[in-house]
Amino acid sequence: MSSFSVGSSDMEAIALGGAFMGTGGGGDPYIGKLMAQAAITEHGPVTVIDVDDIADDALCVPVCMMGAPTVMLEKLPNGQEAYQALQKLEAYLGRRADVLVCIEAGGLNSTIPFAVAAATGLPLVDGDGMGRAFPELQMVSFTMFDIPATPMVIADEKGNSSVINAISNRWTERLARCQTVEMGGAALVALYPTSGAQLKRSLLRRTVSLLKEIGETIACERKANRNPADTLTSRLNGRKLFTGRVVDIDRRTVGGFARGRVTFKGMDRSAGKLFTVDFQNEFLVASDETGALLTMTPDLICALDADGGLPVTTEQLRYGLAVTMLGIPCADFWATDIGIELVGPGYFGYEHSYVPLHQLG
Amino acid sequence: MSSFSVGSSDMEAIALGGAFMGTGGGGDPYIGKLMAQAAITEHGPVTVIDVDDIADDALCVPVCMMGAPTVMLEKLPNGQEAYQALQKLEAYLGRRADVLVCIEAGGLNSTIPFAVAAATGLPLVDGDGMGRAFPELQMVSFTMFDIPATPMVIADEKGNSSVINAISNRWTERLARCQTVEMGGAALVALYPTSGAQLKRSLLRRTVSLLKEIGETIACERKANRNPADTLTSRLNGRKLFTGRVVDIDRRTVGGFARGRVTFKGMDRSAGKLFTVDFQNEFLVASDETGALLTMTPDLICALDADGGLPVTTEQLRYGLAVTMLGIPCADFWATDIGIELVGPGYFGYEHSYVPLHQLG
Repeated sequence: MSSFSVGSSDMEAIALGGAFMGTGGGGDPYIGKLMAQAAITEHGPVTVIDVDDIADDALCVPVCMMGAPTVMLEKLPNGQEAYQALQKLEAYLGRRADVLVCIEAGGLNSTIPFAVAAATGLPLVDGDGMGRAFPELQMVSFTMFDIPATPMVIADEKGNSSVINAISNRWTERLARCQTVEMGGAALVALYPTSGAQLKRSLLRRTVSLLKEIGETIACERKANRNPADTLTSRLNGRKLFTGRVVDIDRRTVGGFARGRVTFKGMDRSAGKLFTVDFQNEFLVASDETGALLTMTPDLICALDADGGLPVTTEQLRYGLAVTMLGIPCADFWATDIGIELVGPGYFGYEHSYVPLHQLG
Repeated sequence: MSSFSVGSSDMEAIALGGAFMGTGGGGDPYIGKLMAQAAITEHGPVTVIDVDDIADDALCVPVCMMGAPTVMLEKLPNGQEAYQALQKLEAYLGRRADVLVCIEAGGLNSTIPFAVAAATGLPLVDGDGMGRAFPELQMVSFTMFDIPATPMVIADEKGNSSVINAISNRWTERLARCQTVEMGGAALVALYPTSGAQLKRSLLRRTVSLLKEIGETIACERKANRNPADTLTSRLNGRKLFTGRVVDIDRRTVGGFARGRVTFKGMDRSAGKLFTVDFQNEFLVASDETGALLTMTPDLICALDADGGLPVTTEQLRYGLAVTMLGIPCADFWATDIGIELVGPGYFGYEHSYVPLHQLG
């Protein structure tokens, strides 16, 4: 039942937490942070509210960017553009939004909603639909509660837009993804218009607060010259997987996604071993050279710079960079049959079944 | 200032004329004819009206199918589906359509509007936006008069749809084409909502009557055991290019289009010579074995079965089929700088400039 105010300086911690929980993907929140800070400086702080304080008939709308993070960073929207997708959805629905929502608690999309919230004066709910970042738009708790992604607006910075109405959230993903590709690889979207009542059932709660707390932890540990890896694994019930240097990275932008595989050469206790991590925007599966699985989707694979302790996104990975990889258990609702069908290894083409982090190794 | 009524039996001639003017593409109008006949039998005949009889503030809407003709024929819509794209556009505009329009005078899209007109009771204007068939949606006279293709609705038979708003008609084509591909290669669309006043300026007039006349000519000639090639070239100021047998055909469905090249071995006066015709849904360029150009877009390249005299579409071309190819001059407005930019050889990737049919050979 607590609301809190987010000013320009608070965005530092939220962006840092978003970069960590972005599991390598979702785009560098640094850019979103700058957008949010500019909007907050111009319009004033953003109020983050508890979902239980939202009226049942309120119109709640997630706003975000979709596309390959590698492209998003080069095609950065201004606050006005992010706002346009929302405005077009409001025009289509014939109703103004009451509350904004983060579709994911990670990456650029954990900071862009702050820019829109500041510009519109609307509150942002403390929660999201993933508890991390995922690459496709149907991969949210809302889908598990049968909430349609449509009507959805997709818009580009040139002035093109579409209102999509689809028979399923997977179909929405398909029709939106192909337009994202045409629009140049990244687009702004407003989707999953939900009532307050629906949001109370389906939201993954307090993840915006969590991002802030994680970001503050990272900043504190860095100030004390400690790598935040230990404190974060302890706080999030996770596990350090390995520390290693990037020795190879294969990345392609295909079908509107940044896909690839990064290979690490172990350091310290893992010296002499090789590790690989696959990604589709986000890190999906980590394994060692014997093929033994270390962590797999929907559990989180998070990367910290082994030296400075800052979160590392896939587009920042480069030859020679030393990284500590962490495994973090996913939100409980993902570790269900329907959750695994939506975001488990099988969906991404892996033949192995999901094994929870703490049952591995 | 004349309107006329089209009953079920009149659809035979219109479909035949549409197959001829479809220049090999646009889909076999036979299927659209069956749809139109079923709708006319159920709801009564369609009234075709002159554009000058339309009120200046009337809402006029072209309805059609987009995609690869090869796919359209396997994913045939029922009248209800074609109607849905119109209904969704009407809902978006908050206004009912007053008049329907053929986007092209050729192929499936010269008959589908009759099915929708019969089902809705709306009149169909005597004219179209191409005077033939073309593969992309910006290739219409409406574009030359700065009429936007959007808001445009694209819908599939499963229940998915989008309302597109784009900054140009080329952008509309891109955003609609990618969704057509996702929807399975063919989709139903309602686009270019225009006022009666706009339509009077931009419509290519009386082409529906022309299709009917061409179809009746083909039927008459066939009844008299004559091939209609001579009568049609004379009526349409065209030229017989050659008669030949198909000896090779290369076809692919790429990017939502049926593309390819057909090679003919000449017969009769052309015996011993080889000819090629390239197509992207429609026939684009005909040349002989020396590379000499015989006819090129936007002029029409039309195919008649050398034996039976019936129009032949690209998907009907097969090894051994004997075909008479005709060249027909395009509508005057295409043979302008802006027209050639939109639909001339350069747009389709050819290096040669447009040379009108009667200045060739």
